[in-house]
Amino acid sequence: MEKIYITYNQIHDTIKDLAEEVKKSGFDPDLMVAIGTGGFIPARMAKTFLNKPILTVGIAYYDLDDRLADSPVITQWVDQPEKQIRGKKILLVDEVDDTRATIGFCLDELQKHEPAEIAVLVIHNKNKEKKHPIPSYIKHYFVGQSFKDPWICYPWDAEDTAEQDQMALKG
Amino acid sequence: MEKIYITYNQIHDTIKDLAEEVKKSGFDPDLMVAIGTGGFIPARMAKTFLNKPILTVGIAYYDLDDRLADSPVITQWVDQPEKQIRGKKILLVDEVDDTRATIGFCLDELQKHEPAEIAVLVIHNKNKEKKHPIPSYIKHYFVGQSFKDPWICYPWDAEDTAEQDQMALKG
Repeated sequence: MEKIYITYNQIHDTIKDLAEEVKKSGFDPDLMVAIGTGGFIPARMAKTFLNKPILTVGIAYYDLDDRLADSPVITQWVDQPEKQIRGKKILLVDEVDDTRATIGFCLDELQKHEPAEIAVLVIHNKNKEKKHPIPSYIKHYFVGQSFKDPWICYPWDAEDTAEQDQMALKG
Repeated sequence: MEKIYITYNQIHDTIKDLAEEVKKSGFDPDLMVAIGTGGFIPARMAKTFLNKPILTVGIAYYDLDDRLADSPVITQWVDQPEKQIRGKKILLVDEVDDTRATIGFCLDELQKHEPAEIAVLVIHNKNKEKKHPIPSYIKHYFVGQSFKDPWICYPWDAEDTAEQDQMALKG
């Protein structure tokens, strides 16, 4: 399987470009919702350029009693969604749109709280079969880079930062 | 005011060392609690080395109706703390221990849920007057680097990543 190595600085620069795209799109989010844990780093980077608050949601595939679950389980959600989601413009942030199972699940759950609008921002998209379509209510889907289906080696997963930089420069 | 520039890779390496310290200390957390938004990036980096789930808490100094608040306001908290905090070993993560107001507030709030133990991990500490003592129930306080009281320029706040790296190398 093809492997692609990415540095922190490359991701920071991608997020900076994406924030420009968001601003030019006319979609002005009230807040970001970061999907844990992949969305934590890109959302915090995006905050520098968009200056919006971040809430997080946690999705796991095991329940709170540590039993394997068949479908996604919410481990953390937005408090008082009737105040924080309803009528608000939400930018949902994650690292990669892979099968879209988790992002799709989060979109459906957020939509139940009747936001004014939801948009999505991901660093990377994989052009592969998806488990969830992009819902028709999504008008803006901001993607930094698209790949076919490589193994993406993110800098936060690196054992050795110098090696990660070298591999990224080679690729 | 003295300014200190730090790169992403430097922080990643510091977190890797801190994770080693955590392992050697004998404190084996069940989960991390990241204080938003400063704790998001260090907690996600630490997950690579500690392999523990992350929940987040959000603290603001304005309330949900956007009014300035005198004391910290919780914008996000752990769901079902009786399951997720009570009896658990928690590693609370933030970027910097500055006045310790937010970290101190979070410790007091988490302690109310009767965890088995709480420890703290921060990338940086400032050796300055603190608004909150380290509570007596804290046995482990993991600090990457201590400074007197500089302006710490974190890589996630950088407009230009190349410039940030240059400034960090100079310093």
